[in-house]
Amino acid sequence: MENVNDKQMRAHILAEALPYIREYNGKVVVVKYGGNAMINEELKNSVMRDIVLLSLIGVKVVLVHGGGPEISEMLKKTGKESRFIDGLRYTDAETAEIVRMVLAGKINKALVDRIEHFGGKSVGLCGMDGHMLKCEKQDEKLGYVGKIVEIDAKVITDALSLGYIPVVSTVGYDDEGNVYNVNADTAAAVVAGALGAQSLILMTDTKGVLRDREDEDSLISKIYVSDIPSLVKQGVISGGMIPKIDCCREAIRRGVRKVFIIDGRVSHSILVEILSDSGIGTMFVNGD
Amino acid sequence: MENVNDKQMRAHILAEALPYIREYNGKVVVVKYGGNAMINEELKNSVMRDIVLLSLIGVKVVLVHGGGPEISEMLKKTGKESRFIDGLRYTDAETAEIVRMVLAGKINKALVDRIEHFGGKSVGLCGMDGHMLKCEKQDEKLGYVGKIVEIDAKVITDALSLGYIPVVSTVGYDDEGNVYNVNADTAAAVVAGALGAQSLILMTDTKGVLRDREDEDSLISKIYVSDIPSLVKQGVISGGMIPKIDCCREAIRRGVRKVFIIDGRVSHSILVEILSDSGIGTMFVNGD
Amino acid sequence: MENVNDKQMRAHILAEALPYIREYNGKVVVVKYGGNAMINEELKNSVMRDIVLLSLIGVKVVLVHGGGPEISEMLKKTGKESRFIDGLRYTDAETAEIVRMVLAGKINKALVDRIEHFGGKSVGLCGMDGHMLKCEKQDEKLGYVGKIVEIDAKVITDALSLGYIPVVSTVGYDDEGNVYNVNADTAAAVVAGALGAQSLILMTDTKGVLRDREDEDSLISKIYVSDIPSLVKQGVISGGMIPKIDCCREAIRRGVRKVFIIDGRVSHSILVEILSDSGIGTMFVNGD
Amino acid sequence: MENVNDKQMRAHILAEALPYIREYNGKVVVVKYGGNAMINEELKNSVMRDIVLLSLIGVKVVLVHGGGPEISEMLKKTGKESRFIDGLRYTDAETAEIVRMVLAGKINKALVDRIEHFGGKSVGLCGMDGHMLKCEKQDEKLGYVGKIVEIDAKVITDALSLGYIPVVSTVGYDDEGNVYNVNADTAAAVVAGALGAQSLILMTDTKGVLRDREDEDSLISKIYVSDIPSLVKQGVISGGMIPKIDCCREAIRRGVRKVFIIDGRVSHSILVEILSDSGIGTMFVNGD
Amino acid sequence: MENVNDKQMRAHILAEALPYIREYNGKVVVVKYGGNAMINEELKNSVMRDIVLLSLIGVKVVLVHGGGPEISEMLKKTGKESRFIDGLRYTDAETAEIVRMVLAGKINKALVDRIEHFGGKSVGLCGMDGHMLKCEKQDEKLGYVGKIVEIDAKVITDALSLGYIPVVSTVGYDDEGNVYNVNADTAAAVVAGALGAQSLILMTDTKGVLRDREDEDSLISKIYVSDIPSLVKQGVISGGMIPKIDCCREAIRRGVRKVFIIDGRVSHSILVEILSDSGIGTMFVNGD
Amino acid sequence: MENVNDKQMRAHILAEALPYIREYNGKVVVVKYGGNAMINEELKNSVMRDIVLLSLIGVKVVLVHGGGPEISEMLKKTGKESRFIDGLRYTDAETAEIVRMVLAGKINKALVDRIEHFGGKSVGLCGMDGHMLKCEKQDEKLGYVGKIVEIDAKVITDALSLGYIPVVSTVGYDDEGNVYNVNADTAAAVVAGALGAQSLILMTDTKGVLRDREDEDSLISKIYVSDIPSLVKQGVISGGMIPKIDCCREAIRRGVRKVFIIDGRVSHSILVEILSDSGIGTMFVNGD
Repeated sequence: MENVNDKQMRAHILAEALPYIREYNGKVVVVKYGGNAMINEELKNSVMRDIVLLSLIGVKVVLVHGGGPEISEMLKKTGKESRFIDGLRYTDAETAEIVRMVLAGKINKALVDRIEHFGGKSVGLCGMDGHMLKCEKQDEKLGYVGKIVEIDAKVITDALSLGYIPVVSTVGYDDEGNVYNVNADTAAAVVAGALGAQSLILMTDTKGVLRDREDEDSLISKIYVSDIPSLVKQGVISGGMIPKIDCCREAIRRGVRKVFIIDGRVSHSILVEILSDSGIGTMFVNGD
Repeated sequence: MENVNDKQMRAHILAEALPYIREYNGKVVVVKYGGNAMINEELKNSVMRDIVLLSLIGVKVVLVHGGGPEISEMLKKTGKESRFIDGLRYTDAETAEIVRMVLAGKINKALVDRIEHFGGKSVGLCGMDGHMLKCEKQDEKLGYVGKIVEIDAKVITDALSLGYIPVVSTVGYDDEGNVYNVNADTAAAVVAGALGAQSLILMTDTKGVLRDREDEDSLISKIYVSDIPSLVKQGVISGGMIPKIDCCREAIRRGVRKVFIIDGRVSHSILVEILSDSGIGTMFVNGD
Repeated sequence: MENVNDKQMRAHILAEALPYIREYNGKVVVVKYGGNAMINEELKNSVMRDIVLLSLIGVKVVLVHGGGPEISEMLKKTGKESRFIDGLRYTDAETAEIVRMVLAGKINKALVDRIEHFGGKSVGLCGMDGHMLKCEKQDEKLGYVGKIVEIDAKVITDALSLGYIPVVSTVGYDDEGNVYNVNADTAAAVVAGALGAQSLILMTDTKGVLRDREDEDSLISKIYVSDIPSLVKQGVISGGMIPKIDCCREAIRRGVRKVFIIDGRVSHSILVEILSDSGIGTMFVNGD
Repeated sequence: MENVNDKQMRAHILAEALPYIREYNGKVVVVKYGGNAMINEELKNSVMRDIVLLSLIGVKVVLVHGGGPEISEMLKKTGKESRFIDGLRYTDAETAEIVRMVLAGKINKALVDRIEHFGGKSVGLCGMDGHMLKCEKQDEKLGYVGKIVEIDAKVITDALSLGYIPVVSTVGYDDEGNVYNVNADTAAAVVAGALGAQSLILMTDTKGVLRDREDEDSLISKIYVSDIPSLVKQGVISGGMIPKIDCCREAIRRGVRKVFIIDGRVSHSILVEILSDSGIGTMFVNGD
Repeated sequence: MENVNDKQMRAHILAEALPYIREYNGKVVVVKYGGNAMINEELKNSVMRDIVLLSLIGVKVVLVHGGGPEISEMLKKTGKESRFIDGLRYTDAETAEIVRMVLAGKINKALVDRIEHFGGKSVGLCGMDGHMLKCEKQDEKLGYVGKIVEIDAKVITDALSLGYIPVVSTVGYDDEGNVYNVNADTAAAVVAGALGAQSLILMTDTKGVLRDREDEDSLISKIYVSDIPSLVKQGVISGGMIPKIDCCREAIRRGVRKVFIIDGRVSHSILVEILSDSGIGTMFVNGD
Repeated sequence: MENVNDKQMRAHILAEALPYIREYNGKVVVVKYGGNAMINEELKNSVMRDIVLLSLIGVKVVLVHGGGPEISEMLKKTGKESRFIDGLRYTDAETAEIVRMVLAGKINKALVDRIEHFGGKSVGLCGMDGHMLKCEKQDEKLGYVGKIVEIDAKVITDALSLGYIPVVSTVGYDDEGNVYNVNADTAAAVVAGALGAQSLILMTDTKGVLRDREDEDSLISKIYVSDIPSLVKQGVISGGMIPKIDCCREAIRRGVRKVFIIDGRVSHSILVEILSDSGIGTMFVNGD
């Protein structure tokens, strides 16, 4: 049994969450979940508990997830050889189907199970449900890599209105019955836009945007989207960070108020971000 | 363009559906979908269109599906060797996971896609969603073959209340995060009971219960559950039919009004059954 | 008991109704019912069953009826002599009252009874109910022949919202307590417009508009309202057909999407029309 | 312009209505309307205004009407000779139809018109609407004189729930499509019972129950149903009053709280009755 | 027991209230209650009964009250000496607190008690509840005399929507936790405007606006706001009447349809005013 | 700006609140607020923030308050001399009125203002509102000290249903218009019982029940109501604590699940109690 001082400190800290709880009450927050936070079992439980907690304090949380390593593993197991074109994996119909199985059948339902386990109500969805994500090929030579051409978020808002935490796998459909693998960051931005979300949180394996990549203390807390081009020019944003940042910009363009890139390797990083102005990662907002 | 007589005949036939439409209006019908009707692409489309049609004429349809051959195929592909104990397949955790992937990730979402394609609203669920199907091991030596110990059908009734056609994969959960493979017939009976369904329809690869297995014309149209024991004694019900009939009996015991065993190989067999008193398969009812 | 092939054919035909059911689901269809379909008892039952069926498959049907021969018969019985002015019957107050009695007291309530008999929910209304149809004299010398000057369709939409099939007699009121006889075709067009109906169906004793009146095979399936003047000029539309076509045009002008002139003598002609693109009568639509 | 004292007296009187308004707020009151109050045009307007007023102060009023003289008049006009058996009019199918026309087509809709004219919302119903009054022959030799064997008051409660004042003609239906003439007092009692009415008010051409028929001052204000037999024995209740009193007793038996016999020839007699404990007529209550 | 003639006259008078009841049904009426009507116990009960009656006949009444003499009395009791600046009482924080206690703690809750006693449902509110009346100092030298800078009437409309009669004390808040005394007439005008009231009724100790202050018969029944300036010029409106009239004008400017100055010393004056076109006081309307 | 470790610790602590938030989500908690927590301005703000926080995380909080010192102060100011009978203060009508003013007019509305200030929605009520607390004299010789004889909690549940935090002053009414001073602890127990509250929290100026009054470490964390008599016998519960404990027992008897006596002098003591099983005070539960 903890002593009185501990309890008081806890109460004190909870009490200080008031303004943040007030800000997010009744608002939609889309969390893009991926990377290490998804592989480490302890971190996963921690994230799912945070999601349930946000839901209980009145935030309408939507969880969008990717599935990197588990997809590769299953492809390997089934003997599918990955073919690369200009460094990008070619996705044939069979691969797209395996992606769907791993995402919508394994990862998604396991996340739903965890959320329910911690006391939330949850339902697992993918782009087929309610014909949510209509796609076409992004580039003919990449096969069934999908570009979202139409989003119908009604199945998500229906779920939210009944108190469920929707977990979304980013696979898409088209009118011919094909299955598409959609980039999870991009899909999360599109979903957040369609829902008029207050925030989109991208969980990554980085600390956020660093002014000097060698110096972990050089984190930029807040970036106006209008400053992105010059940051790219300066080389602050480069390499694998560029598509992530494009995705932040796209979400803002679609009306999301704040987009966060946070470090999923830090436990409770979502709560940290939701509970402070400055946060621990990088926040993108409109304006200049 | 068809001629007037054809049109009239069509209209005439549609007109005659009136009493049946009236009977099922607003009622829940659970369809257990499996076997050949699921493999043949044309039959599949036909079944999905029938489901949408039933939904549009006011029936609350729930589709429960199995997945036999595709599971075996995927197990083979991934090099999982099936071990049999007393003739029953042993299901280790990895196999259970593959079952979930194939059912909830592939078959389920493909069915949802078809229903949406034909104009229905649909959402794909499994036993994890809303923690619907809580299981324990049916028999320790069979591994993760699940016996349902608790059902919470709220996620299904929520979906029905918003006009969705729920498609249900029969995998279950437990408090330790395990995945269970649940027999689809049994699960359909449990779900139908929990929903207070008017009818449960089991689509099979047989014509129904035949008095003489060699004579297709000896179909028994209606069986009172109290007559089952004597039919078993007489050998009319035997072999693989016994578990199916147990499942019919269980559904009736749980309050379902009528249970049908119909031939899924016949196109529109669901509509045929819903549109006639006698039907084309075997109907089980309470009483004697 | 019918054989399996018959049953299958039935199911097949029902299955093919899917796209049409989908199109009309939740939409308002106003049926103007009159002529032979109203006199022949068998046809009447057939029409009422069709109405109930449309209602059960989600169409919001409103039935507007006339009453020709029964009015004449009652006038004769009560010894009222009909006076004609320029070939049109003069309607004094007593005649208008008899019209109301026959329409709202006899025909209307008998139709309501039939609809209820076949399993529908129905309520009989006239222009007085909810002060729906406010009239003034169309022409002083014709007496109480009403021209609708104001429509308040709330009593109809209230009935539809509770699942009733409203049956409407076309008699109107004014602020002095007078009763007006209103032409049923015209009233149906006004009602359909006020309800934002998807379709108005006029049941007549003709096959539709024929290019050559002598040739029953010369039916024109589709007419754009902009083509009406030239069809009148050519004499294709002439005589008693002219007011009917004016009424079609008026309905389209008031926002009804499609107006049909169909042959009420053909059984299930409403279903035939609702179940096919071309139909058996003549369809009027906007545009050219 | 009236002077201040007048205005104040008016206000004073309105103010005193408070406890009565409170008692009836949200309650159902069924008014059986007939006799002289129905023939005299001025009285009719006065009754309809009172009905609208009751409705505006929160009473759920249902108006049930008869139609005596107008039915006879129409029968005469159409040359139907009335045949009497044991002093009761024989009702053949044609007569029943004329009754329906006069009641549901003429009187009912004229009342609806008046109510709407004075600012109420009203809808005219009969026993066919919503299959409200199911009948069988009361006595084979009287023809289509109906005895109510089943009442479904849903169409009335639906109308009340939407703020309408339902006006009800007492004609009934059976499964063969026959029309029945039902005694309006009896029907009003059955309707009031089915609605769980607070009060049933029977408007008559008498002052109420007089202890001495020759002395108008001998009015009995309140009668317990248990006292009726002795009043009949004493001859206080006799002749044409007996069926009326039977009807009061029946209404009480079906759960109506208070039944009033009031003098419809006195203007605003309904308001008088609703506004005072003793009232101007005779009140029947349960108990002894 | 009163005689029949009396009862009839009562009924007659009640019946004549119909058009007025119709006009105010479902509308908001704000009553500013003060002066002698508030001090005289009998008058108070009469006003509260009238309020309940209006509420029962469908008017949404809001009662705004002042508290003149009781405030002075309490200030005297507590030994607070009133300081006057330019003839206006200086309100320090302590005085403002005493005002709040007397208004919101004594008068308000006593009125609520009376309304409940006469059968209404009531809840007592002040400017703090739902942060309804945000104030700032009207004039620094007067201390905490409040000018309303923001009104949030949601707490009132919430109460009305649940059937309560809100009783409102006119004290205001600011962000620093100060208490303000707000002029009740002004507050009533602001509240009426925010509620889109049909009428604002100011109960005063005068007969209304008199053309000749010496002649009680010279009451002006109706004044267009555009005529106010010339009436001021002529000296018809002068002295203590000027702020009252400013308040009427302000209410009209904020969208209130009719504002009445009535004599609260006359019993049932509210009912008198609501029940006649001309009324007993002076009515202000827009236009000229 | 705090450092990352601090933020993480905060997040960690918030995360641990999950099971408690889950337990209280949607439940009613009645907080009896009084003593030092009410006098110290800083503590008051802290309590109000905690209340708002509980409300935002889905707890339906009702605040019941007393007013000790401020009442005495006002009585003194107005020169009312307190008369004591058997050590209890005699409450004449004037005193009761002053109590109401201080409670319902000053303290209540100031608390409402604070709650609104911190982002909650609040409304201030007393026993008159919705005629919530009907009283009679507890003991004739004590004057208007009220014993609650009837509670109608509808005005509280109405407020909760619309998202308000009701603040309740414990003054009562009777049918003669008298005002009663009701003991706040007792009233809180009655209110909690009527609301079917999950918990009643009594804020006091003690640590809870101590086994040895001299030893602050001898706090008893949990007491079964069946153990109270023996604790009284042992002298553990004695003096001023006895009425408090009676009140706990009464609340449990009325169906409240848990009653807490906590130390209001410790900041955030409510949160501490709601966030831990053992808590910092003494919990009373049913059973033995």
